Amino acid sequence: MENIEKIQKIGSWVSYRPDIKVVDCTIRDGGLTNNFNFSEDFLKAVYKCCLDSGVDYMEVGYKASKKIFSTSDFGPMKFSTEEDIRKIVGENDTNLKLSVMADSERTDYHNDILPKDQSVLDLIRVATYIHQIPTALDIVKDAKDKGYETSINLMSISTVPTDELDEALNLLGNSEADVIYLVDSFGSLYSEQTRSLASKYLSIANQGNKKIGIHAHNNQQLAYSNTIEALILGVSFLDATISGFGRGAGNCPMELLLGFLKNPKYHQRPVVKCIQENLIPLKESGVNWGYDMAYMLTGQLNIHPKAAIAFIESEKNKNYIDFFDKIDNGY
Amino acid sequence: MENIEKIQKIGSWVSYRPDIKVVDCTIRDGGLTNNFNFSEDFLKAVYKCCLDSGVDYMEVGYKASKKIFSTSDFGPMKFSTEEDIRKIVGENDTNLKLSVMADSERTDYHNDILPKDQSVLDLIRVATYIHQIPTALDIVKDAKDKGYETSINLMSISTVPTDELDEALNLLGNSEADVIYLVDSFGSLYSEQTRSLASKYLSIANQGNKKIGIHAHNNQQLAYSNTIEALILGVSFLDATISGFGRGAGNCPMELLLGFLKNPKYHQRPVVKCIQENLIPLKESGVNWGYDMAYMLTGQLNIHPKAAIAFIESEKNKNYIDFFDKIDNGY
Repeated sequence: MENIEKIQKIGSWVSYRPDIKVVDCTIRDGGLTNNFNFSEDFLKAVYKCCLDSGVDYMEVGYKASKKIFSTSDFGPMKFSTEEDIRKIVGENDTNLKLSVMADSERTDYHNDILPKDQSVLDLIRVATYIHQIPTALDIVKDAKDKGYETSINLMSISTVPTDELDEALNLLGNSEADVIYLVDSFGSLYSEQTRSLASKYLSIANQGNKKIGIHAHNNQQLAYSNTIEALILGVSFLDATISGFGRGAGNCPMELLLGFLKNPKYHQRPVVKCIQENLIPLKESGVNWGYDMAYMLTGQLNIHPKAAIAFIESEKNKNYIDFFDKIDNGY
Repeated sequence: MENIEKIQKIGSWVSYRPDIKVVDCTIRDGGLTNNFNFSEDFLKAVYKCCLDSGVDYMEVGYKASKKIFSTSDFGPMKFSTEEDIRKIVGENDTNLKLSVMADSERTDYHNDILPKDQSVLDLIRVATYIHQIPTALDIVKDAKDKGYETSINLMSISTVPTDELDEALNLLGNSEADVIYLVDSFGSLYSEQTRSLASKYLSIANQGNKKIGIHAHNNQQLAYSNTIEALILGVSFLDATISGFGRGAGNCPMELLLGFLKNPKYHQRPVVKCIQENLIPLKESGVNWGYDMAYMLTGQLNIHPKAAIAFIESEKNKNYIDFFDKIDNGY
């Protein structure tokens, strides 16, 4: 059997695309590994790295509701109050834009997201499962009315039937969101699937005045590869984290992405420096992330990494065969 | 600027391609990390893993000349004498085929490669730089005359000008080799380049009765991704190693590849078992391989990983900034 896939490439090999925006999610996704228990020095070092490396956005954390989550269980960036953000960034009188993520149904957005003129934040990213889309759209409308840029990040799409995904994207395409994100929550997507989905999302974007972003996970060592594939097709908001720091297998590594992008405003050296001085010590202190055979298996099975996270966190002498046998039978 | 890349895909998503051959290079490429100082138990465990997992070929080592390399500096699989191979595989009365690699100008092929009927080997793979092709072709002819399958693995093509590569491929296309390998020696190729090169190699293959193989390195976390991209286009000989074991950043991980391939003859569990019982202990014993920021930098700069290998082997407190500054200025 033979078939031809046509890749309509945007941009050329030697030049660069000024529409590309790099979004650093180091604190927000990395905070899932340690309940946001970061020192102020660490947070400031990541902020400085974002400034020096020329990335476009830094996501400082979540806007989680204090009615749902306790401040005694999580560090400040789980909640990202204006006061706590300003401890790190001051007035952020820079070209770097700041974002937070609001999880649909886990955020008290009416109260906790302030009008834009009272905030150092620029972008509200709304994470949603498909059944929460009406809530997500209301958060977007609220944020838009308050003066923010907005994105909708539709999660776990690798388990959503195609017709439901199409209906969801149609809703998002007609929403007020500025950016719609292709999210590979389980790190299960292959390049062919990523290209096919990116094309679908881009056709939605082209109907309105929207951008498409990608947020990849590295369960199968494909986070960087899939990010590049998506950007070649025209996806323009690229999520990455320093040293791939993030839950489970982690994310698209910023150092790889900035080594690929040719816009002279991006600089790789500050990322190398931040890894040397902050991420390597963090890993040595016992915080776990990055590619591991257990995450590979959950990615290949297209399931949530929580079983792999529990396996890696709980056992000192890891028995991968046992994990393989259990996960293969619906752990 | 816009342009369309057409990918002519061979095979479908749910079925499998019986022409695919998986080549395990664990011992041969991994031996470059420890001068082939493997225990007999380790060698036998890898052999058993290859048998149980259903891969098609196992590369047992190099056929290096004892006139050039000393047996006191290297373990047996640097030389892969018939006697030493049989210590591991006996008569190899199995479906698994065995290969060795002969480096052009570093092998005493007339004497050391025996007639096929005196050997347990099936495939002679000839590694060559572009300036050694006449020697490589003579080794292929010699091996072919002795009754073996043969391949030519043209190395370091990422630094070869396009017109010279085209001329080289024309020579290889008219040679007696059964397989021509696309080799990403420095782990520097991106997916677009891999697809473009794979298409070029496949057009050579289609002119004769040849197959194309791929041997990728993981400097940019693209070894697996590029291997899949090449196979989608029709490349059929796929090199991989257990746990990605191999020089520097290592190779395409076998566990990822077998998780992707759908031919029911392949089994992932024996690879998980071999990693658990042999590769993890090897790594814990101090043998170094796998993705590291230093290898990422040599890959992105399209240079040999030797500076990164020296950096990683020599220093306990690694200063990546220093490495970055040196390598960026022609270390």
